[in-house]
Amino acid sequence: MGEGGASVSALAFAVTARDSGSFARCGRLTLPHGVVETPVFMPVGTQATVKSLTPADLTDDIGAQIILGNTYHLMLRPGADVIRELGGLHRFMAWERPILTDSGGFQVWSLGDLRKIERDGVRFRSHIDGAEVFLGPKESMAIQQALGSDIVMAFDECTPYPATRDQAADSMRMSMRWAADCRRHLPPNDQQALFGIVQGGVFDDLRLESLQQLEEMGMDGIAIGGLSVGEPLEEMVAVLDGLAPHLPPDQPRYVMGVGTPQDLIRGIDRGIDMFDCVMPTRNARNGTLFTDSGKLNIKNAIHQRDPSPVMEDCSCYTCRNFSRAYLRHLFMSKEILASRLNSLHNLHYYCALLQRARAAIAAGHWPQFRDSILQAY
Amino acid sequence: MGEGGASVSALAFAVTARDSGSFARCGRLTLPHGVVETPVFMPVGTQATVKSLTPADLTDDIGAQIILGNTYHLMLRPGADVIRELGGLHRFMAWERPILTDSGGFQVWSLGDLRKIERDGVRFRSHIDGAEVFLGPKESMAIQQALGSDIVMAFDECTPYPATRDQAADSMRMSMRWAADCRRHLPPNDQQALFGIVQGGVFDDLRLESLQQLEEMGMDGIAIGGLSVGEPLEEMVAVLDGLAPHLPPDQPRYVMGVGTPQDLIRGIDRGIDMFDCVMPTRNARNGTLFTDSGKLNIKNAIHQRDPSPVMEDCSCYTCRNFSRAYLRHLFMSKEILASRLNSLHNLHYYCALLQRARAAIAAGHWPQFRDSILQAY
Repeated sequence: MGEGGASVSALAFAVTARDSGSFARCGRLTLPHGVVETPVFMPVGTQATVKSLTPADLTDDIGAQIILGNTYHLMLRPGADVIRELGGLHRFMAWERPILTDSGGFQVWSLGDLRKIERDGVRFRSHIDGAEVFLGPKESMAIQQALGSDIVMAFDECTPYPATRDQAADSMRMSMRWAADCRRHLPPNDQQALFGIVQGGVFDDLRLESLQQLEEMGMDGIAIGGLSVGEPLEEMVAVLDGLAPHLPPDQPRYVMGVGTPQDLIRGIDRGIDMFDCVMPTRNARNGTLFTDSGKLNIKNAIHQRDPSPVMEDCSCYTCRNFSRAYLRHLFMSKEILASRLNSLHNLHYYCALLQRARAAIAAGHWPQFRDSILQAY
Repeated sequence: MGEGGASVSALAFAVTARDSGSFARCGRLTLPHGVVETPVFMPVGTQATVKSLTPADLTDDIGAQIILGNTYHLMLRPGADVIRELGGLHRFMAWERPILTDSGGFQVWSLGDLRKIERDGVRFRSHIDGAEVFLGPKESMAIQQALGSDIVMAFDECTPYPATRDQAADSMRMSMRWAADCRRHLPPNDQQALFGIVQGGVFDDLRLESLQQLEEMGMDGIAIGGLSVGEPLEEMVAVLDGLAPHLPPDQPRYVMGVGTPQDLIRGIDRGIDMFDCVMPTRNARNGTLFTDSGKLNIKNAIHQRDPSPVMEDCSCYTCRNFSRAYLRHLFMSKEILASRLNSLHNLHYYCALLQRARAAIAAGHWPQFRDSILQAY
């Protein structure tokens, strides 16, 4: 795992630039399906599709380097066996670049009363046909192996917010036991990297205990889970501040399910390399578009006759070709193309934002760039 | 309008090849926004978008040469004045090739009891906000001028099926009076061509009377309306058979709202140059895909693990990249991408079918090609 270590790993990670006044850094993450420049934003492809977009959109127009797949959704439909039979998730969805799959843990946790946590995993009912399903570390590893993702996430429990210290500790320790199970079922290999997920709620010492245990398990990368689950911004930042000095220097670090453009900037400042979030695509489908001057609601009547693009200096297909007036018309007319053009812009905005962040870090003016984005909204 | 005539027209039409045993022919239609090789299929862009697709999809992947816009829908939303202010329909939807706009006549006719026919047009209530709207020849010409389409359709009444001879005659004669009004409001010019629409139900002599009147009005092209409105296939074919020997040889001919791949082949065989239909896009959104061996229902369980493309030798983006199993998964998962990939294939199929028809006519083997498609289903 470590630099110069002899262990087998499906990934190689090299830090290529650092900001001197923060934890911000650039890196190059080499995976079986290609190289990823970090910090990176990963579009979410829940059901083997980034909603409304093709692989060509993602590579050519958006510049996506790596996308997410979703174990929970794919195991239920079309089923991991179907995807394996069809050559794995890359072939199935015609995506040739790296894929990270989540473990399904977050989704079954989100089912609330519909799931029951047992010693070795979670029993729940499918939201599609009501069938009883069991998912734990062993099952999640088998499914993610069938999917053939480049990065496999450990199966964990997302500690709810708020939680007492005892609740957070119990939950974190169960997740660490499950993480060890995951590593046992998916030992180090050159096909799939395994990331452990730091839990522990808002308690710094629990977070550090979790981190240390994961490092001892020989994970290929470290994720931070249990954020963006309802806690105030300050709590999220405090967790990242508490962890930043202790994160392994030679491994990629990933904050799961975060967040707004500002959240990404705050995460980069605290040494985070990887992000994913449904926000850009979900907001796009609801008519909310991201720009450097803040969010724009395309439904607003002010855009009815506006010939200008969503964002003046944006190079995406949407902004190169279409006015706010046209995008508003599509949205008001409930046209499918509205979701698509809006998603294209928002994902382009997110990916370009991180490209600009990488350039700023490499050029030595990260603080100025960071502050310009944090003050924009 | 005739060959060698000195009249101003926004179009030029030259027949480039003929089949010796039928009325099938190839032509080159030159319009203000470009050249169209006929026979041609025109994808329908009802609300200033061919549903789910971008202009780049239509030109690069589908090979669409000309598309349709819809006066009724666009006058209600976003409004013809909005589109004019934004530079016309081409600029609004970023489509640089020719556009044909219908007159709105068919849509208000489809409103049934919600509309009232008056001497100079139709009074109806908007399906969007219930506002009372009046649309007649004068209004339709003004709106289509604001839209800036290359080809403007005369405002007419679609004669219902079935209709008595008297009903069909009265309806046709009102349409001819309205057609003359349209020509008066939109005199021959070099910006927008005007097509008259032959009506007359299933009565050959009424159809010929209608055709003759339109020719006397100096239309730039001839459309055949009132087909695909519930009549049996034989009735539609009989109408085309009755008109075929009498259609003006030097003008483009367009059958409106037709139809299946076989209907297109039958139309070409009877001298038709232009077609439009929502069938390929609507069927796509319902999971029905066109192939040379017939229609395919992607929902069918037989496709669940099928790694083959929709059609083996199809060169569309969908067939080049995705399996039937993946398309079925997208459809069952209600993913937006299902509509898009299916629409891409179906429109590609239609446009490629007509490209193959052109090649067959030019190469002198139209009868073999025609029969191979008619026997496929």
